Amino acid sequence: MARNTQVAADHHAPPVTDILARFVAGHPSRGWSDAIDHEAHRTFINWVGCAVGAAHHDTARAALAAVQALQPAPQAALLGRRERVDMASAALVNGISSHTFDFDDTHLKTIIHPAGPVASALLALAEHTGASGRALIDALVLGIDVSCRVGNAMYPDHYDRGWHITGSTGSVGAAAACARLLGLDAHRTAMALGIAASQPVGMREQFGTMTKPFHPGGAARAGLMAALMAQHGFTASPRALEAPRGMMQTISTKNDWSEITSELGQRFEIGFNTYKPFACGIVIHPSIDACAQLRARGVRPEQVERIELKVHSLVLELTGKKEPADGLQAKFSVYHGCAAGLTFGRAAEEEFDDAVVNRPDMVALRRKVVATVDDAIDEASVDVTAVLADGQRVHVFVEHAIGSLANPMTDAQLEAKFRGMSDGVLGAARCSELIQSCWGVGAAPDLRTLVRLATPA
Amino acid sequence: MARNTQVAADHHAPPVTDILARFVAGHPSRGWSDAIDHEAHRTFINWVGCAVGAAHHDTARAALAAVQALQPAPQAALLGRRERVDMASAALVNGISSHTFDFDDTHLKTIIHPAGPVASALLALAEHTGASGRALIDALVLGIDVSCRVGNAMYPDHYDRGWHITGSTGSVGAAAACARLLGLDAHRTAMALGIAASQPVGMREQFGTMTKPFHPGGAARAGLMAALMAQHGFTASPRALEAPRGMMQTISTKNDWSEITSELGQRFEIGFNTYKPFACGIVIHPSIDACAQLRARGVRPEQVERIELKVHSLVLELTGKKEPADGLQAKFSVYHGCAAGLTFGRAAEEEFDDAVVNRPDMVALRRKVVATVDDAIDEASVDVTAVLADGQRVHVFVEHAIGSLANPMTDAQLEAKFRGMSDGVLGAARCSELIQSCWGVGAAPDLRTLVRLATPA
Repeated sequence: MARNTQVAADHHAPPVTDILARFVAGHPSRGWSDAIDHEAHRTFINWVGCAVGAAHHDTARAALAAVQALQPAPQAALLGRRERVDMASAALVNGISSHTFDFDDTHLKTIIHPAGPVASALLALAEHTGASGRALIDALVLGIDVSCRVGNAMYPDHYDRGWHITGSTGSVGAAAACARLLGLDAHRTAMALGIAASQPVGMREQFGTMTKPFHPGGAARAGLMAALMAQHGFTASPRALEAPRGMMQTISTKNDWSEITSELGQRFEIGFNTYKPFACGIVIHPSIDACAQLRARGVRPEQVERIELKVHSLVLELTGKKEPADGLQAKFSVYHGCAAGLTFGRAAEEEFDDAVVNRPDMVALRRKVVATVDDAIDEASVDVTAVLADGQRVHVFVEHAIGSLANPMTDAQLEAKFRGMSDGVLGAARCSELIQSCWGVGAAPDLRTLVRLATPA
Repeated sequence: MARNTQVAADHHAPPVTDILARFVAGHPSRGWSDAIDHEAHRTFINWVGCAVGAAHHDTARAALAAVQALQPAPQAALLGRRERVDMASAALVNGISSHTFDFDDTHLKTIIHPAGPVASALLALAEHTGASGRALIDALVLGIDVSCRVGNAMYPDHYDRGWHITGSTGSVGAAAACARLLGLDAHRTAMALGIAASQPVGMREQFGTMTKPFHPGGAARAGLMAALMAQHGFTASPRALEAPRGMMQTISTKNDWSEITSELGQRFEIGFNTYKPFACGIVIHPSIDACAQLRARGVRPEQVERIELKVHSLVLELTGKKEPADGLQAKFSVYHGCAAGLTFGRAAEEEFDDAVVNRPDMVALRRKVVATVDDAIDEASVDVTAVLADGQRVHVFVEHAIGSLANPMTDAQLEAKFRGMSDGVLGAARCSELIQSCWGVGAAPDLRTLVRLATPA
């Protein structure tokens, strides 16, 4: 997906994060002149005076009112946990959890994972305010529409430049959703969007660290707080998104405004949302899908002599690791993907566990996979033939893998994915009830039952 | 200060903030097809499953530990107010208050207002953790060094592009300061800087709204939380600032790394901090200073027939409003500035009150100011002559106005500025005690006394 940005990247920058960290952690106390120390006191006293002086200004009052709406805590649930926290913190932590496995949803046109920021902000706010499930679903559709449309306008320049587009558009989407849930009028909704527009979250350099899932969580919290602040009269520029020094022109050189305005209220971006069936890079998905289909047709791993795989060259370029040493490496191994598909019929987070990756039967099976490049095959497709010990050949061609827009996961598959992640946390019986509660959320009078079921008994 | 950015600004963008706000506030409930509504439920159920599934991952655990450090609230004071809130919210609100009057400090090389993000995060954290005043001052010097050095490296491109540099560098500075105060080692300090690097705050389009002072407040909160998260094991990229898709290259095309590394630990940026003596644009400051000097030399407004002002053309270009209608306009009127300087010897927030601006004696006096352009005079200087009714001429030339680096405010002037803002909030006696407590903070065993004095009795 990476294209070159207009500005040449500096790959030889000195390690300034590390340099500053050592300096901050290691510089001796008062390791400077008396003049500098006195200037520090002057800086401090001037700051205290300014803060005391404006303490009763409308600006401080409005911000404080929003902050006080977070008390008394606890107010909202953390999905899958017993602890309860204030609603802004719940938005943060649920946003982090939901993106931790890199297994959530994808708006393919922008690679935005839209639910993380928007749903995390909404559930916390809806639980605490006693909103109806209908209000939550309405706000979810509208909030996701806002973040994906803003993303459509800026993509790909904005993403190429270095922004993790899920977090940078997520603050605005979450603010829109929360403004809707709070029933703000158009003016205050614009203020909420404006406050959020000053808070794009997330750089791509963070991929591979905990700060990646922080991005949707941070965006959820920023959006929720922006809506609360707007509700209490906090102001922002009414052109905070589009002005020359507003958010979008500051963080993207490409801005196609028609992506925001065209068919607004008629075409809904949530209709283009997809769900990952497998907890790994998207180019392996067709191969896993094909091998799971072989399994469904009765092929057993112990019968297999060879698996012949024809794939686009990109698949081996990105995921050609033959002997993955652990779960993380296995996410970049189409060989392990095939073995998992044939053995388990799935490849969720637990099929990328280190222990599973190193199981002798898995190691043996992935060595039987013979991959050849055929660029006549689309990168979203795969041609697989299982050659069995008795000479039989079983062939599967996958044009669009499960989970793509052309071949979406069924509701039953979504449920199975849900159980695979959640049965171990909540227990199977509670999970079944929770799934039913989720399907019925649009008709629920409030979120209490759902939230109770989503936390351990 | 504005230069052209490399990318042409689009001044004709449609009003998408308003368009989206009306859509979000006004679109009917369930105003879409059943298919879209079902997709919303699929998006929701998939998100719940992902969040439940990862709820006990180390990532969620570390974030939750940081969030739990905010409880039980209340933990920290709001300067000038009786309410107490959790420390992250205190950082936010104090950061907002301290920048509300646009009257705080300025690191002239970058136009960063450095104390807002850094001191706001520090005082809240120091109060709650019982840190010493010495630890606070050490962390203040180091945190400000980090934000101003990062700012030096990116300025001016980053600012021209649209970022409010106080908030965009402030998150990192506040994180550095809080990491220091918490005693984090170099590795965890780097993680704190990294988490903060994903959270630059603030666009210049917000100037003139409450979201401008939100920027230092939001940066303070982000930096404080980043340090708490790093303390509890949350990870980020160790090259989050400098990598090609790290913060600095994503938000600035100019990055002079030597501004960060050169003389680190020897030259301290807080030594270049300045304090505004007057609550208005910096080009009027020499004229106000000169008229206050006339007053100090015995010139009374009622004696004055004419005030002859020779100024650089920029002064009239930016602040040439002859008949300001209210306080906000008066901040762009060198004529009102002269009248305030001669009448009151000062021009703090209250001298820009609407009522003061429209007082008959003020209106009459500013009409006696005759300004002429003389570009031989530097824009930081002014030549003023008061022509009195008896024909006497009193002349003052100001080369560097009070508050500039070359002519800094004295400690006594800083105290007078402090009283001007704070006496009305805390009472004069308490203010005197608070001022003494601020000067002595570096030797204080903890912040309890100072915080008590900084809040109403």
